[in-house]
Amino acid sequence: MSSTIGIDLMGADVSPDIIYDAVQTTASKFPQSRFVLFSHPSFVVQESSQIQVSYAAHVIEMEDSPLQAVRCKKDSSLVSGILLLQEQKIDAFISCGNTGALVAASSLYLSHLPNIDRPALLALFPSRKGSMVVLDVGGNVSVKAKQLCQFAKMGTAYFKARFSGKIPKVALLNIGSESEKGTKELQEAYHILQAAADPSFIFAGNVEPSSVFMQDIDVLVTSGFAGNIFLKTAEGVASFVFQKAAERLSDKQELTHLAHELSYEAYAGALVAGVDGVVVKCHGYSSKEALCSAIEATTEQVQAKFLNNLKQFL
Amino acid sequence: MSSTIGIDLMGADVSPDIIYDAVQTTASKFPQSRFVLFSHPSFVVQESSQIQVSYAAHVIEMEDSPLQAVRCKKDSSLVSGILLLQEQKIDAFISCGNTGALVAASSLYLSHLPNIDRPALLALFPSRKGSMVVLDVGGNVSVKAKQLCQFAKMGTAYFKARFSGKIPKVALLNIGSESEKGTKELQEAYHILQAAADPSFIFAGNVEPSSVFMQDIDVLVTSGFAGNIFLKTAEGVASFVFQKAAERLSDKQELTHLAHELSYEAYAGALVAGVDGVVVKCHGYSSKEALCSAIEATTEQVQAKFLNNLKQFL
Repeated sequence: MSSTIGIDLMGADVSPDIIYDAVQTTASKFPQSRFVLFSHPSFVVQESSQIQVSYAAHVIEMEDSPLQAVRCKKDSSLVSGILLLQEQKIDAFISCGNTGALVAASSLYLSHLPNIDRPALLALFPSRKGSMVVLDVGGNVSVKAKQLCQFAKMGTAYFKARFSGKIPKVALLNIGSESEKGTKELQEAYHILQAAADPSFIFAGNVEPSSVFMQDIDVLVTSGFAGNIFLKTAEGVASFVFQKAAERLSDKQELTHLAHELSYEAYAGALVAGVDGVVVKCHGYSSKEALCSAIEATTEQVQAKFLNNLKQFL
Repeated sequence: MSSTIGIDLMGADVSPDIIYDAVQTTASKFPQSRFVLFSHPSFVVQESSQIQVSYAAHVIEMEDSPLQAVRCKKDSSLVSGILLLQEQKIDAFISCGNTGALVAASSLYLSHLPNIDRPALLALFPSRKGSMVVLDVGGNVSVKAKQLCQFAKMGTAYFKARFSGKIPKVALLNIGSESEKGTKELQEAYHILQAAADPSFIFAGNVEPSSVFMQDIDVLVTSGFAGNIFLKTAEGVASFVFQKAAERLSDKQELTHLAHELSYEAYAGALVAGVDGVVVKCHGYSSKEALCSAIEATTEQVQAKFLNNLKQFL
């Protein structure tokens, strides 16, 4: 099936060259697909039969205030991409830029899925038995209890679409397992989710980040602030442990394989979940390898009509 | 020097036997020190020349609401210990019980150090060059900007007392490095700390948990909620990586050494920082080895008059 994937070259910590390079590599694997690159006149790109370019006058920078940037820099590579997705001229949009701006632009210009007030950033983590869906990993700094409950529904739909309809175990990320632990929003969400007894998922209560990797949790629900701390601590600790291990252990090759395996899932990027469109956020410092994985995974998701599949479970 | 260390046997996830066992092992290393154990009549302990026991009618459980428990269960092992510390009949108090209750009881019954509104839980983490002081790791779920600034001062004093007066680099734990990232409290604390330009420490701005282990940060300031997520994610990811590595790598012994080395600092327990007394919180699920480390470290701190030393730097 043919598909058109939009990719933002600007506003990342990584240079546009590397993103462009990743697009070229991935394009050769998907000869039926087209790629629309969103660039700035300062970075001119060679077009081809598969690769088109759209130039925007502005770039949303990492330090820009998200809402203000989305409103004032409408002619930026990031907002241009979202607008083309809104017009259905592309099937998906990938950016390594300002996370808040990407989520804000998606929320502002794309329809929301039913009963979703604010989109959340959804990522996959490795776990004991396979993969765990975590949301929000950084879309909304603070959220209300009602939104945490919506994230539980959204994560459930994503999990079912991805893993053949299996009913997931859903938990709240918290600093203790008891129902009265954590912030007011978490306490309230705990009581709502328990009272609702929604048959579409199994509510497993609160789970602490010290034990979540060893438990069979399928969907982990959190505010964007706590979720981002969780995501980045996991990254930081894993790379610290691997570096310390590399200094001391002899089995370097196996160690590299393991590090790659454990970070592989994250390479696919995070989905802006809750809007009617496939918007993917990659790490600002993505490697070419990570970018190729993300572009490949997104192309495959579009071809498999993943979003339509997900909507059936909402 | 002789010292008297109080130890709570009750209210932990770990059984009182294991805590008692750790006290006996440590006591033999410090023949000049005395140990006062706080127990419940259901767990009777043999006294000796070094080990005394005080029985309390109640136990504060993990699921108890901290403030209510401290008020209603005054005759509990936890509150009895804090009251004996208040009366200076013991030199330090160690508990593996309800964290919130331990911090609340310390705050209620012990004098606060100058300009400290609320005590914070302070822990040491391994870092690239040695040790990093992190506070709050779980004492206060939510904190105001002013309290974050007090934590910066408190962490600085702790760092100087521990590491020969060296001026520390202090950073705020946040989801981005820019000054406008994170919660309102973090944004406000950033501006206060930057404007104050306090010469007692170097303010290094915001730091993300993905890079903090590789940077030369000496004191990491955070709310108790985010700090506890950070602490427990670090624990969870490290043990997940070590377990995966143990399944795959041949160098098991070196791997065990490394895991031990990286978790060793945490074994000393977390200090309830900001009150005029040495109160140490150990993990609810502490191993005997971890408990021995904590009791030993606390005994040494008392003998070295660590708290007096810290007060000079406030």
